[in-house]
Amino acid sequence: MTLPASADTHRIEPPNWWVGMRDTSLQLMIHGAGVADAKPQLAPYPGVTLKASHRAASANYLFVDLDVSPAAQAGELALTVGGTTLRYPLLARAPGSAERQGFGPKDAIYLVVPDRFSQGAQLGLAGMKEGVNRADHGGRHGGDLAGMRKHIDYIAGLGFTQVWPTPLLENNSEKYSYHGYGATDFYRIDPRFGSNADFGAFTSEARAKGVGVIQDVVLNHIGSGHWWMRDLPAPDWLNQWPQGYTETHHARMTLQDPYAAPSDRKRFTDGWFVPTMPDLNQRRPEVATYLTQMTLWWIERFGLSGIRTDTYSYSDREFLTRWSARVMQEYPRLNIVGEEWSPHPAVVSYWQRGKRNHDGYVSHTPSMMDFPMNSALLAALVEDDGPFTGWTRVYEGLAHDFVYPDAANLVLFDGNHDTPRMYSLLKKDAGLTKLALAYMATTRRIPQVFYGSEILLQSPLERDDGRVRADMPGGWAGDPVNAFNGTGLTPEQRDMQDWVKRLFNWRKGERLIHDGALMQYAPLEGCHVFFRFDAGRTLMVALNKTAKPVDLPLARFPERVAPGQRARDVMSGQTQALGERLTVPARSPLILEITR
Amino acid sequence: MTLPASADTHRIEPPNWWVGMRDTSLQLMIHGAGVADAKPQLAPYPGVTLKASHRAASANYLFVDLDVSPAAQAGELALTVGGTTLRYPLLARAPGSAERQGFGPKDAIYLVVPDRFSQGAQLGLAGMKEGVNRADHGGRHGGDLAGMRKHIDYIAGLGFTQVWPTPLLENNSEKYSYHGYGATDFYRIDPRFGSNADFGAFTSEARAKGVGVIQDVVLNHIGSGHWWMRDLPAPDWLNQWPQGYTETHHARMTLQDPYAAPSDRKRFTDGWFVPTMPDLNQRRPEVATYLTQMTLWWIERFGLSGIRTDTYSYSDREFLTRWSARVMQEYPRLNIVGEEWSPHPAVVSYWQRGKRNHDGYVSHTPSMMDFPMNSALLAALVEDDGPFTGWTRVYEGLAHDFVYPDAANLVLFDGNHDTPRMYSLLKKDAGLTKLALAYMATTRRIPQVFYGSEILLQSPLERDDGRVRADMPGGWAGDPVNAFNGTGLTPEQRDMQDWVKRLFNWRKGERLIHDGALMQYAPLEGCHVFFRFDAGRTLMVALNKTAKPVDLPLARFPERVAPGQRARDVMSGQTQALGERLTVPARSPLILEITR
Repeated sequence: MTLPASADTHRIEPPNWWVGMRDTSLQLMIHGAGVADAKPQLAPYPGVTLKASHRAASANYLFVDLDVSPAAQAGELALTVGGTTLRYPLLARAPGSAERQGFGPKDAIYLVVPDRFSQGAQLGLAGMKEGVNRADHGGRHGGDLAGMRKHIDYIAGLGFTQVWPTPLLENNSEKYSYHGYGATDFYRIDPRFGSNADFGAFTSEARAKGVGVIQDVVLNHIGSGHWWMRDLPAPDWLNQWPQGYTETHHARMTLQDPYAAPSDRKRFTDGWFVPTMPDLNQRRPEVATYLTQMTLWWIERFGLSGIRTDTYSYSDREFLTRWSARVMQEYPRLNIVGEEWSPHPAVVSYWQRGKRNHDGYVSHTPSMMDFPMNSALLAALVEDDGPFTGWTRVYEGLAHDFVYPDAANLVLFDGNHDTPRMYSLLKKDAGLTKLALAYMATTRRIPQVFYGSEILLQSPLERDDGRVRADMPGGWAGDPVNAFNGTGLTPEQRDMQDWVKRLFNWRKGERLIHDGALMQYAPLEGCHVFFRFDAGRTLMVALNKTAKPVDLPLARFPERVAPGQRARDVMSGQTQALGERLTVPARSPLILEITR
Repeated sequence: MTLPASADTHRIEPPNWWVGMRDTSLQLMIHGAGVADAKPQLAPYPGVTLKASHRAASANYLFVDLDVSPAAQAGELALTVGGTTLRYPLLARAPGSAERQGFGPKDAIYLVVPDRFSQGAQLGLAGMKEGVNRADHGGRHGGDLAGMRKHIDYIAGLGFTQVWPTPLLENNSEKYSYHGYGATDFYRIDPRFGSNADFGAFTSEARAKGVGVIQDVVLNHIGSGHWWMRDLPAPDWLNQWPQGYTETHHARMTLQDPYAAPSDRKRFTDGWFVPTMPDLNQRRPEVATYLTQMTLWWIERFGLSGIRTDTYSYSDREFLTRWSARVMQEYPRLNIVGEEWSPHPAVVSYWQRGKRNHDGYVSHTPSMMDFPMNSALLAALVEDDGPFTGWTRVYEGLAHDFVYPDAANLVLFDGNHDTPRMYSLLKKDAGLTKLALAYMATTRRIPQVFYGSEILLQSPLERDDGRVRADMPGGWAGDPVNAFNGTGLTPEQRDMQDWVKRLFNWRKGERLIHDGALMQYAPLEGCHVFFRFDAGRTLMVALNKTAKPVDLPLARFPERVAPGQRARDVMSGQTQALGERLTVPARSPLILEITR
């Protein structure tokens, strides 16, 4: 067995760890030529023990199990592997790290596609395969961390308190590298976005300005350019199919279906997403441990406020139980939001912490993306109201909250990088767009807005990722329109941007929205009306989607409002004395604080 | 107080009772001029005790509580009310009455609208307000019990083992009396359908021919011509609204919604269905008892095999718990199917016996109409398949069975008297119609077919009750087309009728359909495939909705079928040796028995 001459040729992951984690186990993956059968030795270090080591199929991977006890102090381990001594940093955790508060119902999230938001530096190719070509909708456009950092004030100014960038990890692929969902290195920010230090600067500055950062984590797959692919630790590191490439059929309900065929379940979970995204086998213990430690590493290293988990249900579900348990064990108040693209509350709720499932499945993931309400809301606004259509979808959708163990902790979004733009779906009607945003901002959910919704960005109605993820105007030098300073925006865009700013800044300070009770009424005459309230205060939300003003009889809402009370429009500040009827302007939301 | 001179002027309900009921209580409602304050006396009768009596607001109603102990023998009670002695029959129960087997998964149900099915007698006006006018879609057409009795052989011959007639009780209203949902006398068959004795003859003959009878019971409301309306027992006998007529807003989810306003819940339950249907207040104990005893009376008197409960959730839900408990206490193997017109499994399942509800609500009703699957199935067949559309609706709909405590006991219907005709919804495509019927007949449900579906009756696509409930051709003397003997049917109608006959007669004898396991696969190339099986036998159901034959790779279904096995088409009897692929003909169902 030949070991490399210098430690430099070894890759160790995670690249460092911390003292004081609740779970004291740590498994290092050491990659180096012929390292697999080395017998590692740890120089004596108080509180740290080398428990075991083992190899997998490849001769070039060694897995070393350490125990970092509560007694261990920060410092540097010396681990000798063959003749080489590797230095391994053990860091002290930031004060309060374990107790950090993750994002929650008091927050509003702004979703950014970093390649398409703003270019703050000229990083160019940075040694990667794919360069910048803004003319190609599916190509890289050159947005970066410096651009995002430059516009934290813009995001914070709009009233958002969290930012979710789509993945920033190295994606060194020939094509479509911009979207970030095919990692080629789990511990490196893509150099076309910046360095790991740039990411640290971004997260620190965002945090300082009141904006938490949510990491987009992909557990299900890697990119085919991942360095593992040149030397797989073991054949079963990936889900391989004897008959050749096999794609998932996206039949997610195989996991809940009492009638599902085992082969169909396997195909859903182990089938590949696309040929360029090798599917990780999380049943292999080293893969599971690797992904879990990787998640913790980013949270701890960069002070994240939460995780968004891509293609949630496509990973092995028993792994997801253990993964979510471990993350929440280390950060009990953190939040994780999973992506389960289903219109069914019974399916989405299956994955939420606290759900008592029919099959006994247990999850520790506190939040899920509210796909059911997203589709209900956008359909409601363009359909006529009927027994099962229009506002009834939203009304009955929210009534389904009894299915969820913690409905207030769901993330309700206007759209994301995979869906057509809300404004386009809503027939380019700014009034309907305000209704959707007002609902998101005032109902019992965590709202998430896709970048550019505030300036009415459009897209085709059919799926067209490159155009949905359009460049934010003003994000590039020389852009004729600039969303950040208002140059070139149409009056309608300006109005919407200003309105969004007032809405979410108001929401930020309104505790009734964060944790007040909710009471809703059956839709009436094209209007949906609900209240947020506590023992002392009441907000009334009235959403009129019709093309004419509606005079709502207040007698419909006897529990919460009465003629003779006063109402203050929280958006305009105007007050009125309430009579028997309340006029809700055509195609508009009305958010009123009701006072005696 | 003046009592009427003769007992004939008293009305006593129920008109008789039985000895040997499990619950020994019996409350008689006695109606007679000034009877309310009478002190009733019961002539000594072994095992029967007069427990109490009381009046309500009206001077003309007396409620008498008896206890009919297990020791009581059949005979006639003598109850003296004031100076009048009323004779009250206590009958012996039919042998096995309590243990009767209700309808279930082994059955197939045929739904008939009696006024529109067949005229077997010329009963004419029979003292009622509305006569026969076949030219009026919303009028009475003159179908009757004699006509239904005449065609029991037709129904049984099609393979159905249960018949559900829409309500047959007296509906003496000026208009729309034909549909039967506005009873004016709870103990009398409408004389335009025949007498109570005619109903007995019909049920006896049906039972003798292997067809059980399901009674359509309306608990929520009466017709405005009900005799109570001339002299209400008490003002709160009905749900009255101080502000005047108030209609239900049909917001059924107020009952599950954790955010519902109490006033909205009340409006749903206590609001009237239409102005001509006074809404009963089942919170009033005498109303609850009356309705419960009325239900038992029809079951016991006519040997019914089950109850279909109209507008199920509109009744007071605490009453529904007690009502369903009492019915199932007396007939533990009976079946009751409730109508809850919602597309949401979470809502429909709320009402099914055994469901552990979020709010602790308990029901004893064993079955519900499967509105969610009805809408999924009919939409699936006319939509393109997509992530959430087409066959995915059926596949994911059935996968939702984990939401139900007893999914196999749900009634899946092609349509009913309130919905457009299936054949019209399916674009008048006989192939799609067969696919729908094949699914209903082979999945894990109790199928219910609307009369005339077997001969492709059509209707407008918008709601149009009178035309949906069209006359069955051949039901009237002189009809140029006759479904019963085939005269004048088009070749397509004949083919469908013959096919339905083979399908349901086969189903009748196929135990794998009645209680076999089910395994389903994700839809593929426009085909939906599932299996029914037990340890020894396997049925394969392949439903191809596309306009071309599809060659299904059997490797998709490794758990249940393999190349080299043999398959017998249960409809044609033809057998084939299976190769690598199975051809499913264009727009057709294929039901195969797989053998080694």
